[in-house]
Amino acid sequence: MMPKSLLLLLLPTLLLAQSPTQLPSHNLMPVPASLRFGGVRVPITATTTVALKGFVDDRLRAATFRTMRRLEGRTGFTFTRELAPEPSSATLVIEAQAAGKAIPSIDEDESYTLDTSEAQVPLRAPTVVGAMRGMETFLQLLSGDRQGFFIPGVRIQDAPRFQWRGLLIDVGRHFEPVDVIKRQLDAMAAVKLNVLHWHLSEDQGFRVESKKFPKLHQLGSDGLYYTQEQIRDVVEYARMRGIRVVPEFDMPGHVSSWVVGYPELASAPGPYEIVRGFGVFDPAFDPTKDSTYKFIDTFIGEISALFPDAYWHIGGDENNGKQWKANPAIQAFMEKNKIADVHALQTYFNQRLLKILDKHKKQMMGWDEIYQPGLPKQTVVHSWRGQKSLFDAAKQGYAGVLSAGYYIDLLETAARHYAVDPLPADSGLSADEAKLVLGGEATMWGEWVGPETIDSRIWPRTAAIAERFWSPRDVKDVDDMYRRLGTISMQLEELGLTHEKNVDMLLRRLAGTRDVAPLRSLVDVVEPVKGYTRGSQQKGTTLLPLTHFVDAASTDAIAARQVTSEIDALLNDPRLMITRDRLKARFTAWRDAKPGLDALIDRAPGLVEIAPLAKDWADMGAVGLEVLQLLELNVTPDAAWRDAKIAVLDQAGRPKAALSFPFVPSMRELVFGVMERSALATEPPAQWRARIKTLANPPRRGRGGH
Amino acid sequence: MMPKSLLLLLLPTLLLAQSPTQLPSHNLMPVPASLRFGGVRVPITATTTVALKGFVDDRLRAATFRTMRRLEGRTGFTFTRELAPEPSSATLVIEAQAAGKAIPSIDEDESYTLDTSEAQVPLRAPTVVGAMRGMETFLQLLSGDRQGFFIPGVRIQDAPRFQWRGLLIDVGRHFEPVDVIKRQLDAMAAVKLNVLHWHLSEDQGFRVESKKFPKLHQLGSDGLYYTQEQIRDVVEYARMRGIRVVPEFDMPGHVSSWVVGYPELASAPGPYEIVRGFGVFDPAFDPTKDSTYKFIDTFIGEISALFPDAYWHIGGDENNGKQWKANPAIQAFMEKNKIADVHALQTYFNQRLLKILDKHKKQMMGWDEIYQPGLPKQTVVHSWRGQKSLFDAAKQGYAGVLSAGYYIDLLETAARHYAVDPLPADSGLSADEAKLVLGGEATMWGEWVGPETIDSRIWPRTAAIAERFWSPRDVKDVDDMYRRLGTISMQLEELGLTHEKNVDMLLRRLAGTRDVAPLRSLVDVVEPVKGYTRGSQQKGTTLLPLTHFVDAASTDAIAARQVTSEIDALLNDPRLMITRDRLKARFTAWRDAKPGLDALIDRAPGLVEIAPLAKDWADMGAVGLEVLQLLELNVTPDAAWRDAKIAVLDQAGRPKAALSFPFVPSMRELVFGVMERSALATEPPAQWRARIKTLANPPRRGRGGH
Repeated sequence: MMPKSLLLLLLPTLLLAQSPTQLPSHNLMPVPASLRFGGVRVPITATTTVALKGFVDDRLRAATFRTMRRLEGRTGFTFTRELAPEPSSATLVIEAQAAGKAIPSIDEDESYTLDTSEAQVPLRAPTVVGAMRGMETFLQLLSGDRQGFFIPGVRIQDAPRFQWRGLLIDVGRHFEPVDVIKRQLDAMAAVKLNVLHWHLSEDQGFRVESKKFPKLHQLGSDGLYYTQEQIRDVVEYARMRGIRVVPEFDMPGHVSSWVVGYPELASAPGPYEIVRGFGVFDPAFDPTKDSTYKFIDTFIGEISALFPDAYWHIGGDENNGKQWKANPAIQAFMEKNKIADVHALQTYFNQRLLKILDKHKKQMMGWDEIYQPGLPKQTVVHSWRGQKSLFDAAKQGYAGVLSAGYYIDLLETAARHYAVDPLPADSGLSADEAKLVLGGEATMWGEWVGPETIDSRIWPRTAAIAERFWSPRDVKDVDDMYRRLGTISMQLEELGLTHEKNVDMLLRRLAGTRDVAPLRSLVDVVEPVKGYTRGSQQKGTTLLPLTHFVDAASTDAIAARQVTSEIDALLNDPRLMITRDRLKARFTAWRDAKPGLDALIDRAPGLVEIAPLAKDWADMGAVGLEVLQLLELNVTPDAAWRDAKIAVLDQAGRPKAALSFPFVPSMRELVFGVMERSALATEPPAQWRARIKTLANPPRRGRGGH
Repeated sequence: MMPKSLLLLLLPTLLLAQSPTQLPSHNLMPVPASLRFGGVRVPITATTTVALKGFVDDRLRAATFRTMRRLEGRTGFTFTRELAPEPSSATLVIEAQAAGKAIPSIDEDESYTLDTSEAQVPLRAPTVVGAMRGMETFLQLLSGDRQGFFIPGVRIQDAPRFQWRGLLIDVGRHFEPVDVIKRQLDAMAAVKLNVLHWHLSEDQGFRVESKKFPKLHQLGSDGLYYTQEQIRDVVEYARMRGIRVVPEFDMPGHVSSWVVGYPELASAPGPYEIVRGFGVFDPAFDPTKDSTYKFIDTFIGEISALFPDAYWHIGGDENNGKQWKANPAIQAFMEKNKIADVHALQTYFNQRLLKILDKHKKQMMGWDEIYQPGLPKQTVVHSWRGQKSLFDAAKQGYAGVLSAGYYIDLLETAARHYAVDPLPADSGLSADEAKLVLGGEATMWGEWVGPETIDSRIWPRTAAIAERFWSPRDVKDVDDMYRRLGTISMQLEELGLTHEKNVDMLLRRLAGTRDVAPLRSLVDVVEPVKGYTRGSQQKGTTLLPLTHFVDAASTDAIAARQVTSEIDALLNDPRLMITRDRLKARFTAWRDAKPGLDALIDRAPGLVEIAPLAKDWADMGAVGLEVLQLLELNVTPDAAWRDAKIAVLDQAGRPKAALSFPFVPSMRELVFGVMERSALATEPPAQWRARIKTLANPPRRGRGGH
């Protein structure tokens, strides 16, 4: 073994020798702004201690306590619960300079540095929040080998790229109990997100106790709401983790649940009921009555006391204007006040709302429909319809937050969201304008998630989005992102997240048995239908139990991704030899899975809907095996064979039970690949490969057209 | 298909034709007092409805609501949320006659009947609690096949054998948050348990907010305690499920956490600290000072208001008397008052305690140490040291509850607890004395359980104990119990129980990867060491993270039970042919598992402790394969071979990482079986089998001596 002193001498050289592409693999997510490996490995043992140096408060103490308990959980060690009296003797030395903002703020300094020195990990930060961000990095650094646990030699200087890194949770459509929200906050902190955007009212539910207007929660929530004490508890829980809580009470539309108890707020007489379906509904506040504003003033006066954050989200989206157009008094008001259309009327509403928010010292934020001529400059535009409105708004001097591209309820893959940048290099914004792009928010809309499934719809995918918001723009290697995401996903479980463990639980419930291996194999190769198409396959209401097979499926089916990459590897190899054995095992397993699945389906009517999927899967396995055999025999099949196989794949390509096989396009490539095999002798491989892709999955006409 | 009218005509015949042994298999647990199958199958479809007939209150309505939501979760249907206006049109018709006791009581009538008639399931009960018990049976009856979901034709008349069917949860040694307690209550209701015995104070922690004596929870709990509001919430949650909550505040011993804040209560000067280790500790209340009783009076006055139950558990166990013997003032008091010894002094304490409880209208209950001459007759004796004290007490006119034999913290198998009967046929009690045996309680002592693992230490095993408390004495088929337990275990998951899903979660945390199949295979064949022996393998303190491999292991390792039964089948077959192939596959898998396990251990220092287990397992696989090969070749090995194999099994039989392989005795039988193979030609098979058993695992000398 090299003496430590020698290692120290070598250290600068080792660091200098590293170029970014030579970095050893690590599990950090988000990737720090500056990260260099090398130097001293710090062992983590049963005698590991922590010291607090510099500024210390309850929040730092509690975060340190939690960090050490998580470290205990992972290592199995029992550490001392005393802080090390002498920093020089401690393993982890946390040195914060100051408390930071009293109330979590957009202006918080979240930076920190973490670098190993001989036998110590010094973590330094200007604020307690920065120190907390660094503690998460520390936990992600924990590594192990036969010698034991350790923190590898690193030098990290880190700070976020964007100051607004949020997750929206819609508890209006499906209520989520306090413990569900708290574990999301823990997970957010773990990946350095700093804003919980809490969408608290919807047509389908009003979720906050109001003492001034008790019929809001009494009649608008089915009994599923947060007491004011619970709200305070969650806000404090978030503060302890350096997370802001921005409440949203959507208005003037999306207010059905309000007007069940207070129909006089609406622009049509009512009566109203809590909405069970999904979509855009007519009820809208009457913006022409002073009583409406008086109600809102009193309401905001009461509820804003629960939310110390500087911002207040007014929603403002998807008001269809129908009630306004149908109400003669409103029409007369518009004529009298020269309000041209419903958009202008909504701007009028927003202007009056702004005055109320000013009075209650809240800064207004709203969805991008509110970006209309006359919008007050201090308003923050929350863009859900596209980046253009964000950049347009920035050019006009409005600050903005991006959610277009981060709609995780669309059930797109992590890779797809990861590719969206709130501020791409070609944004066309000046440096000053670019500063107005505050960051982004992933949006967990609540149509199809409940307490048992929301974790798996948010995590681990949202960790990839969190990285997009925190890490430098050029961190964008998708394969490496997925590799790290796998590890982070396990770590999130230690915070009580259920995204991994509820998969088998849901399958066991469906099957009524512990032996769900065949179901697990199937669920690992399917993905829920993307976009808002589940509703076309299953009756979409808030009352549907979210216990179907699709609820167990992940948006990023691991095995499906492997199949795709194996087929890709096979077709990229001019001799089509690579991975053949692995694919053969896979296709055989698909073909042979059907009897096991059928046996389960026979006893479990809840699984009948997946019988066609089981058949498609087996059929695709047979197609795959045929292709491999043809390759082996060096035979090129005829067009009739191809048409028959493509017909099978067409059938398999149609969603069933709200699920689809994401690798059907790859299977089509396989079929065309074997058809065109002989061309490989003469055609350049890259050209051949591109041709196969187009042959197999021709670009659809009109797609993306004008 | 047979017309329904014809079926109805046949119905009585079908019922009469059934003898108990011809019952079709079912998944009811506990087994009802009277159960007959036959008659009409009632389909459960999307249009299934429920009607309430007769007495209706909020408790019944809420229970019905929960039942229908669970039925939705299992079936995937969305039922109407309206009750059927006309019972004749409903699928499930619940007819309660009265509310039952206002406060859950030992005298509650929990009986119900449930029988299918044409297209309906009428559930009738004299009380709402009885109706709730019947709803759990209804949910357990749900079945499915390719035709859909259904309730099979049944006639059930049910009532419990014992009126006290409890689960003790010790939150003193490890705190369990409210949500953990609530899900235990849900699970208890599912298997018809009716008493939560909440062990709220221990040397290691005092867990209830006291406004009169705030230093109790402030200094005695590490901040881990229930607020009074939370206590009320849990008690109400239990009441809604027909469950009593009996609090225990153990005294005069087990009080270290009390005297941290109030050292003047103790019999020695202090100061005191919260205890971290396990065992019996010295601190005991000073029974000679009036101030002690004044404190207890005030305390019980405050806290008894939170617990409406008629009973109050005073603990009274394991006071070692050391502080009493060492305190001259106490010794002088004893002399002056002619108190012969510390037992008599404790009786004196109990008598004064009884007066305080009388004053606060609580009936006293305590562990069987309190059964001393002079014990007031209205006291309930809680037997933990054996059935004898229970029966002795009954003969003296004391009511009693049995926990000896139901100590689930000993980590014995479900079968072992299932075999213990609170009132065996040979109890020697008269009918009147037998009535004093109120029932039993499973005891979840808290040394080695935390929020992530307590579910798997209680469930599903405790369902077998619940059956012992509810079902007729002659329900005792162990194999059938295990079969049903598997299904019930899945159903408990729908209540949020984590006993199944946290197994893989813990393995993933240990391994740091999702790919834990090799660990899962190993964990399925090992069991935690029984009794209180974990402490000899791992340092036992309340601070040890319960995230070790042993924490993922079940007390009833499924695969281990299968191995044992397969080896048994092989040896029971005179030609040793049966199950050979299955065993061969198993042994091969054991032998070949090591590289996969080693690869995981290499990266995960938390798994290093299982490396010796992996080796033992592979070695046993090799032994098993040798035996099978010798059988195949028809060869009898020599004594040297036998000694070598037994040495391997001796090594494998020693616990490691607080785990053991429960089938080592069976493996020994296998070795001796092949040695003695030739004797099968002449020896009667049963005699041969018995001889192998004894040869392989000779009764230990001195065990259970005189």
